Amino acid sequence: MKFKTLVRPLLVATAAVGATAVAQPAAKPSPEGVATAAQNVIIDRALLTAFKALPSRFEDAKNPITAEKVELGRMLYFDTRLSKNQDLSCNSCHDLNTFGVDNKPTSTGHKKQLGGRNSPTVYNAGGHTTQFWDGRAANLEEQAKGPILNPVEMAMPSADHVVATIKSIPGYVTAFQKSFPGEADPVTYDNLAKAIGAFERQLVTPSRFDKFLGGDDKALTQVEKAGLKTFLDQGCQTCHYGPALGGSLQKLGLVVPYQAKDQGRFDLTKKESDRMVFRVPTLRNVAKTGPWFHDGSITELQTAVKLMAQHQLGKQLTDTDAKQILAFLDSLTGELPKGYIAKPKLPPSGPKTPKPDPT
Amino acid sequence: MKFKTLVRPLLVATAAVGATAVAQPAAKPSPEGVATAAQNVIIDRALLTAFKALPSRFEDAKNPITAEKVELGRMLYFDTRLSKNQDLSCNSCHDLNTFGVDNKPTSTGHKKQLGGRNSPTVYNAGGHTTQFWDGRAANLEEQAKGPILNPVEMAMPSADHVVATIKSIPGYVTAFQKSFPGEADPVTYDNLAKAIGAFERQLVTPSRFDKFLGGDDKALTQVEKAGLKTFLDQGCQTCHYGPALGGSLQKLGLVVPYQAKDQGRFDLTKKESDRMVFRVPTLRNVAKTGPWFHDGSITELQTAVKLMAQHQLGKQLTDTDAKQILAFLDSLTGELPKGYIAKPKLPPSGPKTPKPDPT
Repeated sequence: MKFKTLVRPLLVATAAVGATAVAQPAAKPSPEGVATAAQNVIIDRALLTAFKALPSRFEDAKNPITAEKVELGRMLYFDTRLSKNQDLSCNSCHDLNTFGVDNKPTSTGHKKQLGGRNSPTVYNAGGHTTQFWDGRAANLEEQAKGPILNPVEMAMPSADHVVATIKSIPGYVTAFQKSFPGEADPVTYDNLAKAIGAFERQLVTPSRFDKFLGGDDKALTQVEKAGLKTFLDQGCQTCHYGPALGGSLQKLGLVVPYQAKDQGRFDLTKKESDRMVFRVPTLRNVAKTGPWFHDGSITELQTAVKLMAQHQLGKQLTDTDAKQILAFLDSLTGELPKGYIAKPKLPPSGPKTPKPDPT
Repeated sequence: MKFKTLVRPLLVATAAVGATAVAQPAAKPSPEGVATAAQNVIIDRALLTAFKALPSRFEDAKNPITAEKVELGRMLYFDTRLSKNQDLSCNSCHDLNTFGVDNKPTSTGHKKQLGGRNSPTVYNAGGHTTQFWDGRAANLEEQAKGPILNPVEMAMPSADHVVATIKSIPGYVTAFQKSFPGEADPVTYDNLAKAIGAFERQLVTPSRFDKFLGGDDKALTQVEKAGLKTFLDQGCQTCHYGPALGGSLQKLGLVVPYQAKDQGRFDLTKKESDRMVFRVPTLRNVAKTGPWFHDGSITELQTAVKLMAQHQLGKQLTDTDAKQILAFLDSLTGELPKGYIAKPKLPPSGPKTPKPDPT
């Protein structure tokens, strides 16, 4: 997906309707400047029911959160001993200091191998209804198991090898016992995933938009409100809804087909109905999580916004409209949870802990 | 919105992309018959996260449900004494025996006046994020207050008059006392709305689709699954999501403008961004709740399905695809809650209860 897609002639669907068409906000001439357009913007709050304010954390009854589990999950999240060459942790590609991403098109894994898709942010990922770009994991716990064993990511040879590594580190054995009390053999790959999941469920980044959703009209600037209005007018919320403003599966190219080698969920399931189906990315912190799209091919957020309007809604956004939407997206940049970002002290290796394996 | 809209030439957006476009399920030739198409259909369950199975009832912390409140609400729902001429109840237009609607384009109110919009079903309405076609009420309790006082509907002159009527009926005074214990003056218009809302929160109609969502692959027939697949392929779930498969506000004519005198939420708020914004109708029991659309102008469900694909997604559905979707929609026809449908025994009027007023 290169820039040529943006400039190829698009036969806008509305052109077919003729002069008697109902006036559409998208079609009316926009004011020349974003600032000019942003006078006295009033948002109809009923339209905001598509969204939800972020919870303080994303609970799941199947993995009750405890302080012990969160602390264990945090250590595991930062521990490079979960990778074959002990040079990669979850945090390598989903860096908590940089809004949960690495800001690369695709990430560098074991032996500098490049992954096929852009690393999605871990922040607010508990608000997705499905995980990975192709939705191949149902929840964070299931997701956590993937990259550790993926040969082009952390490349551990097997779940058993991961468990043996953890068991060789006495501090971890104690932490697993505390996190999963009453279990005869608490150090399992499933429990490791539960601990990481419990930690990730804490990673929410409330922003001014949440205050606005809560009723504080002044939490957004006039320009941001103008952008929100444009966002709603265009219909972006049909896919970017919920607490994460995204997170469900949708077809990329719903109205105007999107050409790409990566066919999304189809490449996983080989079902025709999954062709070009991808998980809708969260818009939380989207201004900070570029480059954008599943392949990280889009380096300007404004381009991403215009391409989405074109392929998902069959609309051509003006620069003014796109810039207003960018202003709104800025209001989704939230506060990082300071207590969780720094790398914690990790338990020291034992005599049997494997050494880094660069092969 | 007449049939001519359907046959006017639509410049399908995908036509602009040319021969190199990614193949789209919508564009590929469909098998000649629905039955032929429905061999061994496998649904990708990850795509179903857009939906939710119906709960046993729609709870709301602001209006805790008790048996007393539900029974009171049920009586009020059926009581024609809440209308000026004592000839209309909530059930007149939202008939529980006929899937919560009256099957008329628009309903007949006080003095045979016609309403402006089609009566939406009361079943599963607790699953909407907003109430009325234009979303002017935030919840069922707020909604219940509207039609009683609307001059073209039940036409009661004031909330005070409603309260005085209720207070004149001794059996109701007792029922309000039991439903709102500890309140010094429990017969209020707000409490009346709470009782009706509590009753309506029970009105859910689970169907075979809920069993399917719960994991039972055999709950849908092959033809219904083919229809569900088409529904998902086209992207209908971008608006028809959640437990009610609908219920949020969206623009009618998101891709191709829709021409109608009724401008939806704009007529209420006069905000340009609300032009043509309507509440997305639930698809629960949709096969039984025609005629369709906000003005009840569409008398064939297949036409409604095709118009939606055209105006919301810029797509022309084949007859086969539309028929498959109809088959899926049939699976959303649920079981009516038998215990609530029949008109309950109503408390007799007292000496001061107003008489019918036909003026």
